Amino acid sequence: MQASIRLQRDERQQYLLRIGDTCLIQAQRLSEWTGHAPVLEEDIALANMALDLLGQARAVLTLAGSAQGLSEDQLAFLREERDYFNPTLVELPNGEGRPGDFALTVLRNAFVSTFLQLLWQRLQASSDEELAAIAAKAVKEARYHVEHAADWVVRLGDGTEESRRRMQAALDKLWPYVAELFEADAVDEAAADAGLGPRWAELREPWLAQMQALLQAATLQPPAVSSFRSTGRQGVHSEHMGYILAEMQHLQRAYPGGAW
Amino acid sequence: MQASIRLQRDERQQYLLRIGDTCLIQAQRLSEWTGHAPVLEEDIALANMALDLLGQARAVLTLAGSAQGLSEDQLAFLREERDYFNPTLVELPNGEGRPGDFALTVLRNAFVSTFLQLLWQRLQASSDEELAAIAAKAVKEARYHVEHAADWVVRLGDGTEESRRRMQAALDKLWPYVAELFEADAVDEAAADAGLGPRWAELREPWLAQMQALLQAATLQPPAVSSFRSTGRQGVHSEHMGYILAEMQHLQRAYPGGAW
Repeated sequence: MQASIRLQRDERQQYLLRIGDTCLIQAQRLSEWTGHAPVLEEDIALANMALDLLGQARAVLTLAGSAQGLSEDQLAFLREERDYFNPTLVELPNGEGRPGDFALTVLRNAFVSTFLQLLWQRLQASSDEELAAIAAKAVKEARYHVEHAADWVVRLGDGTEESRRRMQAALDKLWPYVAELFEADAVDEAAADAGLGPRWAELREPWLAQMQALLQAATLQPPAVSSFRSTGRQGVHSEHMGYILAEMQHLQRAYPGGAW
Repeated sequence: MQASIRLQRDERQQYLLRIGDTCLIQAQRLSEWTGHAPVLEEDIALANMALDLLGQARAVLTLAGSAQGLSEDQLAFLREERDYFNPTLVELPNGEGRPGDFALTVLRNAFVSTFLQLLWQRLQASSDEELAAIAAKAVKEARYHVEHAADWVVRLGDGTEESRRRMQAALDKLWPYVAELFEADAVDEAAADAGLGPRWAELREPWLAQMQALLQAATLQPPAVSSFRSTGRQGVHSEHMGYILAEMQHLQRAYPGGAW
């Protein structure tokens, strides 16, 4: 077994890892549908979105590791759970069993892709030229993801009685994990001060406006706001994160560097 | 549970399904690596090849179903095992456990992509204009698959002692399933007579020439020819096919048409 790497854990690195890990783990969840979607076209669409996200994760992890001399693969595969900084929202399972619940999958995809689109838009003006270049490419990919997800949310929400019931259940389940995305903290403050990127809190208003319009079109109602706060962005994850990492890290840990 | 469809089982349909099913099942095996490959770049490469193959499968299945009014999804998800006509080679597991053995995966990818490249080259001259158009697009995708797979076969075959040992074991395991690809039968005769496509037997010589050169570069030795013949192209599959279909068909059978 290969040992874990240690992060220097400065604020710049953590800000970048939050972005890269959001893409990485969301890609992992979407790719669980490959070979399982109920229609071939959708199978291919979900897999393509997962690939876009993996590409974005690679670029941002490479940038996050460069100051410390760590590669994208070391960062993707050789961290301890507490050193992943994705919001808990993306690590939640797609639903019970494999591949899980399509309703929850498309609703989360709408949440995450809309969030990432807003984030990439802002990151195009980053003081870090590499990050700005990554964002310029990613924002175009995110546009397609948002359209695709929104189509499904409306189609299923404003669909049959059964599909509406499932979408509402997914919304009730996911909504409490949204608040975490927009919590202010020192990492975001430092990024904003350095011009690296926006405080995620600044994306809250436009995100809520887009989601409220979408949910209304889908005849869905968010549940009452709760005081629950998830903490994935701080490295404190749900019980599901360990399973994702076990699956992702298995080969790299067993065969260091992919070499025999 | 949704009932199975019945095929008319004429020779044209079976010839097309052999092609479409080869792409479909090979895509399924490659996509098992998504999220599990030891390096992100390879994860993305395998997933991209799986997507190319799924796209090819969709196109050919659509064509195979058109005369009988069957959709690509009905053909992909609602057939009985005996109505799938892929050669047994592609349904063999990647190796023990999930995602399996990378050596076997890349060697099979070399076998199958080289075969498909030769087939698509010939199908560009098909008397069926739609099939010729599908082939013209697919042959370009196959070229990349062949290069990628061949690189890995040489790198691992002519690599460390351990990687060479694994590649040779994969070759010993896969080689007996090659003969089936090139067996002549009435389906191929009818396709050749109609100008639909070549007898797969005609691809044997160029395939063997390419593979012998590759295996030599990889310092690998094919085992002695055996009298064993697999029979997937006739619809008589190995014990592994049922598991693939259970996974692929689960959702479509449970939720007909992907609808709730």
